[in-house]
Amino acid sequence: MLMLDGRPAAKALNEKTRRLIAEYGLCVRLAIVMVGDEPSSASYANSIQKRCAAIGIEALRVDLPSDIDEKELIAKVEQLNLDISVNGIMLLRPLPRGINETLVCDSITPEKDVDCASFASLGLLMRNRGFAPCTAQACIELLDYYGIGVKGKRAVVVGRSLVVGKPLALLLMARDATVTVCHSKTLDLPSVTQNCDLLFAAIGKPRFISDEYVSVGQCVVDVGVNFDANGVQCGDVDFAAVNERCGAISPVPFGVGSVTTAVLLNNTTNAAIRQGETHE
Amino acid sequence: MLMLDGRPAAKALNEKTRRLIAEYGLCVRLAIVMVGDEPSSASYANSIQKRCAAIGIEALRVDLPSDIDEKELIAKVEQLNLDISVNGIMLLRPLPRGINETLVCDSITPEKDVDCASFASLGLLMRNRGFAPCTAQACIELLDYYGIGVKGKRAVVVGRSLVVGKPLALLLMARDATVTVCHSKTLDLPSVTQNCDLLFAAIGKPRFISDEYVSVGQCVVDVGVNFDANGVQCGDVDFAAVNERCGAISPVPFGVGSVTTAVLLNNTTNAAIRQGETHE
Repeated sequence: MLMLDGRPAAKALNEKTRRLIAEYGLCVRLAIVMVGDEPSSASYANSIQKRCAAIGIEALRVDLPSDIDEKELIAKVEQLNLDISVNGIMLLRPLPRGINETLVCDSITPEKDVDCASFASLGLLMRNRGFAPCTAQACIELLDYYGIGVKGKRAVVVGRSLVVGKPLALLLMARDATVTVCHSKTLDLPSVTQNCDLLFAAIGKPRFISDEYVSVGQCVVDVGVNFDANGVQCGDVDFAAVNERCGAISPVPFGVGSVTTAVLLNNTTNAAIRQGETHE
Repeated sequence: MLMLDGRPAAKALNEKTRRLIAEYGLCVRLAIVMVGDEPSSASYANSIQKRCAAIGIEALRVDLPSDIDEKELIAKVEQLNLDISVNGIMLLRPLPRGINETLVCDSITPEKDVDCASFASLGLLMRNRGFAPCTAQACIELLDYYGIGVKGKRAVVVGRSLVVGKPLALLLMARDATVTVCHSKTLDLPSVTQNCDLLFAAIGKPRFISDEYVSVGQCVVDVGVNFDANGVQCGDVDFAAVNERCGAISPVPFGVGSVTTAVLLNNTTNAAIRQGETHE
């Protein structure tokens, strides 16, 4: 069984990003927009900021009060859209109640939408353009790093969210996989998940994928980030129950999640390169 | 075997559209933008115009020369975007060589993009909003008319185009089907197509789906519009070879294609209703 440890994959992608920055002589800047003080968002924002510093990307923290007016928030995003010193905009979600998250996401210009939050970015993704959501892209990067090909393979994605399931299906299709999307209404889910080469779990239920869902030799990528009843972090896959039969499996923590921020920084750097080309 | 004749389905949808127009007291107007004189586009444009007249929608023909400048064409579309008397814009494709079709499609505002041509409309579709491409939606309407449920069913879509394959997959997912998208790089295609309840062929190859692809009792929806070596119109499915084993099958002609224009007129009418609500 090959363990798809995300840490070396993230390290390699960060190296690639660093080389890009040096090669193009870039000064890359990422705006991290944090509304309110939701603890998991705050912790993610801090982690992004730290990684930015390590790689040589300037993090512009934009911390806004949780009672900010929706229009004011959108005006702030639009200001960042226009600010040519900002290459990427990362809006931490969920936003506080009372704010229409969709409207705020849609106000991010696709050129700087490095986590694919707006409908325009999702539309570009349908055309295999623009930036994919970081978590979806992280799955692809993880497979790439471990030399696991996708072309011609049967892939099953469990989950149809806009941040993982659907975008991941598009990324896999673009790479010539045959892709099935399953969800809560899928009948006899194990019969579907057993019949594929690559299984992606993006359900949001602790250890949901048990041994009956997995067949021998499969590659299982766990996108879930959950905490079980004992407060222990775990994925959507019951790792202990299935890992021995897998050909490859990503753990939680230190699987896909470890690659997500590296993708964000890579997307931001590519945004800077494209913006440079447009401005020339 | 149930024959999924598109004509009564189109008639029923047209009736629904007519009732909507009457109920809301609407004056609906569809701009049909035709660049050059590509015969199949011209014939489609004429057919749309005729159906508009029959249903009480005003067709505004915008015929433009094939050597029109791309910028001029986009300016024309933008003029239609702003014209409050126009509710929907149907751009006939393909556009003449030398014109960047994607750019022109993207200039159509989502509110009037009744055939889902722009990336913004595709992005809205990812969120189950906006208008779907008429042909993809026509598949759903055809199934609805014949009372063939989609929820919980296994659907296989062969083809991953932006006008049919991908949007159809999204529509099916939104209706709780478990959806697999296949394409030219799928290995052992028959093993995939045989294992589903609903098979959609959108490949663009005359009579490609032969008996080895179809299993007994399946519902087969043929989205293809081809002409064989003898100039005879046919679908992507070898109808004669498979129809007896199917539970249901749509013919070509008089299957999905017959419903497409009815969807266009229904989309345009819904666009008029939404625009009315926005303006109030």
